[in-house]
Amino acid sequence: MSKMAQTPQPPYYAVIFTSERTEGDRGYGTMADKMVELASAQPGFLGVESSSRDEDGLGITVSYWESLDAIKNWKEHSLHRVAQDTGKSTWYSRYRLRVCKVERDSFFEM
Amino acid sequence: MSKMAQTPQPPYYAVIFTSERTEGDRGYGTMADKMVELASAQPGFLGVESSSRDEDGLGITVSYWESLDAIKNWKEHSLHRVAQDTGKSTWYSRYRLRVCKVERDSFFEM
Repeated sequence: MSKMAQTPQPPYYAVIFTSERTEGDRGYGTMADKMVELASAQPGFLGVESSSRDEDGLGITVSYWESLDAIKNWKEHSLHRVAQDTGKSTWYSRYRLRVCKVERDSFFEM
Repeated sequence: MSKMAQTPQPPYYAVIFTSERTEGDRGYGTMADKMVELASAQPGFLGVESSSRDEDGLGITVSYWESLDAIKNWKEHSLHRVAQDTGKSTWYSRYRLRVCKVERDSFFEM
């Protein structure tokens, strides 16, 4: 099965989360899985695409949403807030988060 | 040095390119490096973030641009067109390309 998100016709929204990790797992893997599961259950969630991360590498996760309100609600979800706080205190040495409006897209399949 | 793109204040544009590869390199690695180098030299280019790809994994590359015109010019660049054609005939089993307007962003550094 493809790991690509099945998104609808644009416009919709994307959150591009690019991160660099601190050393060691320290509960990160478990929480990351839990957050994907929880995000997937939120209203307005459309999909998520995540790359693997090599050592010292950049991690990129893009989640897709119906609206800015859906993104705001997810940002404020209580368990997600705990993860965000631990992200800053423990897991990430650096991250960037970009909220975007997807204006057009194209697909290719061999 | 951080592999994160140093982008200006929004708004600006992002192209999210998510792909799954066919088997074998077949010139892909060399062309991918060349395309990053060439893209970086185009007018309106702001930066690029790329994840590593595990076997059978998803590759995610996000490039950032000043305007939709800059994205259009890069799309139509003659060498980039050759790469796009070979991408469809040879390198990718599947891809999705999304053109987005970055409306806001936030950074964190430990």
